[in-house]
Amino acid sequence: MAMAMATAKLVLLMVLVAGSSCGGSAWRGPLSLLRTLPTTTAAQSVEAAAERLKEDLSSAASSASASSSLIHALRPLMGSAGDLGLRAGVPCDSWRLAVETYNKRDWTTVPGSCEGYVGHYMLGGHYRRDSRVVVDEAIAYAEGLKLAGNGKEVWVFDIDETSLSNLPYYATHGFGTKPYNATSFNEYVLEGSAPVLPESQRLFKKLISLGIKPVFLTGRTEDQRAITVTNLRRQGYSGWMDLLLKPVGLKATAIAYKSGERQKLQDAGYVIVGNIGDQWSDILGAPEGARTFKLPDPLYYIG
Amino acid sequence: MAMAMATAKLVLLMVLVAGSSCGGSAWRGPLSLLRTLPTTTAAQSVEAAAERLKEDLSSAASSASASSSLIHALRPLMGSAGDLGLRAGVPCDSWRLAVETYNKRDWTTVPGSCEGYVGHYMLGGHYRRDSRVVVDEAIAYAEGLKLAGNGKEVWVFDIDETSLSNLPYYATHGFGTKPYNATSFNEYVLEGSAPVLPESQRLFKKLISLGIKPVFLTGRTEDQRAITVTNLRRQGYSGWMDLLLKPVGLKATAIAYKSGERQKLQDAGYVIVGNIGDQWSDILGAPEGARTFKLPDPLYYIG
Repeated sequence: MAMAMATAKLVLLMVLVAGSSCGGSAWRGPLSLLRTLPTTTAAQSVEAAAERLKEDLSSAASSASASSSLIHALRPLMGSAGDLGLRAGVPCDSWRLAVETYNKRDWTTVPGSCEGYVGHYMLGGHYRRDSRVVVDEAIAYAEGLKLAGNGKEVWVFDIDETSLSNLPYYATHGFGTKPYNATSFNEYVLEGSAPVLPESQRLFKKLISLGIKPVFLTGRTEDQRAITVTNLRRQGYSGWMDLLLKPVGLKATAIAYKSGERQKLQDAGYVIVGNIGDQWSDILGAPEGARTFKLPDPLYYIG
Repeated sequence: MAMAMATAKLVLLMVLVAGSSCGGSAWRGPLSLLRTLPTTTAAQSVEAAAERLKEDLSSAASSASASSSLIHALRPLMGSAGDLGLRAGVPCDSWRLAVETYNKRDWTTVPGSCEGYVGHYMLGGHYRRDSRVVVDEAIAYAEGLKLAGNGKEVWVFDIDETSLSNLPYYATHGFGTKPYNATSFNEYVLEGSAPVLPESQRLFKKLISLGIKPVFLTGRTEDQRAITVTNLRRQGYSGWMDLLLKPVGLKATAIAYKSGERQKLQDAGYVIVGNIGDQWSDILGAPEGARTFKLPDPLYYIG
């Protein structure tokens, strides 16, 4: 596990160093994206993380057993930018579209032949670019709202793959091609090191400036509250109205749990003007919110 | 208008001749797609159309004024297959994803800088490939249903950009970059020449073989019934249970009209096991149908 995490950090470091290795020249690569991080705090923590990554890199390089998993983890960075995932029978770009449009449901893992495609998508500029367009729409919508100005207008944010990214985990776990492992994933969550998704944070800050209150609503459980708050603050989030976590042991689908929580918000007099998540289960189920936004996520499915 | 249609047919002929000019080598180009058309009737009508296109080609070529619009119409075929539409500031692939995921709503035209991108997408193998994955999911779902076998199970099909394609029209009208022109579009519809969308027809025939009855539900108006039936039959459709067209002059949104018609089906004792369309307004609004499928359409938006 320690080795896996070191490799994950190595991948991120390679991205930091390589800049826009996968993206088109006109678009910002990961390096320039990090440079545009909105807060000094976040930028500083990225720099500190980069320092730690360098240390991890030297220790990883000194380990002979690191080589194969290292090559494995870096594979998505090696192919061509124009790779649309057309190898091996599965049209990965069409698979991803089917996932994003909710045509494909109840899937458990990314097709094995699409690991490279998904890796490219996530690590190159494509994921960021797709997220940016969603957030641009969300901000245009929010700016167009006529607000009552009574402090009752809220916007629901999911956390994982919406506010924070678990890409460092998934980059060393086959980019979603391997079955979900609750143990190792929870270990990762408890590190509190998940990086910010900058586009979502841009929306978060814009909403606060408009007087719309962000509410986090997550499938993370109540026992993860402290580390979740720590992680969010480390990544530059502040000023949320509430953080709603799932009771430990609650048996409910994500749709049932999340729509129930949204109903409680409404019952308490709040108006959910917007709702953003990476899963369809974040945004389906009445009351959905006046307008919903679906961020990309080709890594996993939560029903 | 006659010139425009000749150019449209010319574009299609170029596609016929060029085969997979835009797609990846491992994927079927338009030529091989046409070869795999499911019915002899449809294949024969395509061959006859190709003959007519050749005639149009000679007359178009003899007209000096044809050159500029010809080049314009062919432009999408000229670029590279890897073109992700990243020129001129608008990330066209992200724009398309935002449209397909319903993040972008109420848009009127495709961004001008995305004309080439959308043309590539529609004329190359990408649109077909994306449609195929949706239909594969729909068929897997239909095959997994436990049917009552009482003849009451139906599947709703939209027509335009679902069962029939208006690409010959849009290819000469800027691939959605120009405002909707009801007059010229209706002229095109009244030709009754819209080609089949082969993936949707594959689903249509599979459903009939399973005992699920297709019902067409379209925003086309009642006065277009005869030409619509003619067009559907010419393109190999037969055996539908009903064809529901909008009353002339009805003032209703697509969602209100279509969900109202689905409600009538339910009230008459039918069970809508599936619903497929290219617009979100085809598949939103209770009763939606037990499962909905969204086909790609980057050409236009109907709210």
